[in-house]
Amino acid sequence: MDELGLRKILSASGADALFLEQDFLRRYVTGFYSTDGYVVVDAQGCTFFADPRYFEAASAQLAGSFVKVEPGAFDAAVARAHGHRTLGVPFPFISRAACARLEACGYALADCMPALREAMKVKTPEEIAKIARACDIAEEGLLATFPRLKEGMTEREVAAVLEYEMRMRGADGTSFETIVAFGAGSSVPHHETGDTRLRFGDVVLIDFGCKVEGYCSDCTRTFLFGDDGRHEDFKAHYAIVLRAHELVKEMLVSGMTGREADEIARGYFRAQGLDKFFTHSLGHGIGLQIHEFPVLAPRGEEVLSDGMVFSDEPGLYFEGRYGIRIEDSIYLKDGKVSSFMKKTSRELTIL
Amino acid sequence: MDELGLRKILSASGADALFLEQDFLRRYVTGFYSTDGYVVVDAQGCTFFADPRYFEAASAQLAGSFVKVEPGAFDAAVARAHGHRTLGVPFPFISRAACARLEACGYALADCMPALREAMKVKTPEEIAKIARACDIAEEGLLATFPRLKEGMTEREVAAVLEYEMRMRGADGTSFETIVAFGAGSSVPHHETGDTRLRFGDVVLIDFGCKVEGYCSDCTRTFLFGDDGRHEDFKAHYAIVLRAHELVKEMLVSGMTGREADEIARGYFRAQGLDKFFTHSLGHGIGLQIHEFPVLAPRGEEVLSDGMVFSDEPGLYFEGRYGIRIEDSIYLKDGKVSSFMKKTSRELTIL
Repeated sequence: MDELGLRKILSASGADALFLEQDFLRRYVTGFYSTDGYVVVDAQGCTFFADPRYFEAASAQLAGSFVKVEPGAFDAAVARAHGHRTLGVPFPFISRAACARLEACGYALADCMPALREAMKVKTPEEIAKIARACDIAEEGLLATFPRLKEGMTEREVAAVLEYEMRMRGADGTSFETIVAFGAGSSVPHHETGDTRLRFGDVVLIDFGCKVEGYCSDCTRTFLFGDDGRHEDFKAHYAIVLRAHELVKEMLVSGMTGREADEIARGYFRAQGLDKFFTHSLGHGIGLQIHEFPVLAPRGEEVLSDGMVFSDEPGLYFEGRYGIRIEDSIYLKDGKVSSFMKKTSRELTIL
Repeated sequence: MDELGLRKILSASGADALFLEQDFLRRYVTGFYSTDGYVVVDAQGCTFFADPRYFEAASAQLAGSFVKVEPGAFDAAVARAHGHRTLGVPFPFISRAACARLEACGYALADCMPALREAMKVKTPEEIAKIARACDIAEEGLLATFPRLKEGMTEREVAAVLEYEMRMRGADGTSFETIVAFGAGSSVPHHETGDTRLRFGDVVLIDFGCKVEGYCSDCTRTFLFGDDGRHEDFKAHYAIVLRAHELVKEMLVSGMTGREADEIARGYFRAQGLDKFFTHSLGHGIGLQIHEFPVLAPRGEEVLSDGMVFSDEPGLYFEGRYGIRIEDSIYLKDGKVSSFMKKTSRELTIL
């Protein structure tokens, strides 16, 4: 984030200063990662207060940037904000207790998250590059996992292998709890990865992602672990989900709302008489958080624009039978959709 | 958690009803895990509001318990609380935005976290068993990792192997970001696992843990990857940290405060003239969260009692050279310390 952008956020938030203590917001503003610390931004500039664990590394990394690094924690940050009346804090992420602590210091609080969200939902080329790397690693991890799948493995073991393969390729960790679902478990969109064992002919749904420098990837693939010849319905439904997924990539353009984007897939399912099996929304913004703005759903009134990164994840779920979801992390560039996922097939894979 | 305990929390919180939407608190109260949902507790009983993703599983798991399962989300939970004036919510964990939403419904809010913390800091035998399993898996994971360490591996790759080995043994994930530090990196208590490569003769510090049914383990081992003959100081300091670690186990008894427990290790370091190199506190409570009550630190005024689970993690850090930390997850039973860690040695390991 640059100084000008930060000034705009400060101005839009209606506060005299921003007071940020959330990991992902500190990272967004300064580019420096730490598990603790405070960032204060006012007309005079941006200061990051780092405790002894981080002071040296932060000073080195941020030398020459618009971010001034000072030693200290809460008390130092509050002292830096002295003289201001209203502090901008992110209401959806700051706790009641943290608010009380600032109010006890005499500050009024304003929500700076709307302004931050406006800025954060459009990614810079540097952010796009980090997400691209997180997507590459995720796909490479999945490709390395395929040959390691064996009959009798549990969902948890498959998650272990996939997470290992992503980690070994440079991921800092997963971007959310890996979902591995075998058979009927795939019909539950947020299936909890458990001890079910893989059997020949199973539908397998894997929803996964990793983090690189804080930025997330998000991908889902549904495939068959062998074809036992009883998958006619599944294959027909798979083709429909894939068509919905691809239609979004073809038809979504900058300037549409999240609702209109969602309707591309939902309308297609409706035309097939299947929309009631599409039980979630089409997608969500992806960045330093796995779920951020914009929202691609019937309630999504935001306009989608170049630089926004989000998921394209239509799905159909048939309770007790199977579920199908095909998800890429995608972004808008020159008015059109570009996918980060270039290494794994979206066509039905039969292992 | 049982119904009587829950009534006590409600009564101690001074609210007419508890209104809980945090994952770990829902899990603590109901025993059921979900990524979303609401729990409302009042004199009439305890209701868990589950959305369609969780309703079926929650109904099955909680049948016959004191928890009633109802379909719905926020609106249903608010409707259930109708007629009450004050809702108990956890101030350190509820966001300003969530508070505003409840206040807009006309409720006054009271902090129920002090009462919840009082209850949560003493573990039931069932909770102890889950933590014991998380500790077993962590130790087994480390033992399986040792023979896989090779010169040239990065810190990140070692973390990948360890996390994989824990996952394969049934862990649901890590209890915090695995810290793997080679050489001088070990002198930074919260070192960020990175791309440094393992060399013969390196000091290696690994601070790690996993989760089982939501419950955490926490363990640190410091060892040598081969002995290059230049580790005299290190070995002398290792013996001192180990002695501090063991002294805590020998001398800590129920009835002491967290400050007194911390002083066992800190006083020993002081007697060696080394207390300024012990730059953090002795330990923290462990449960559904990796850091919870009690606090074992100079500021820890709480009395430690049977059933409390916490870490014993003295350390010494010599900037730019090496750091040593030896940590077990331990608990108080019949007035004395019992360690969960029974499989890995605390004596200096030279691989």
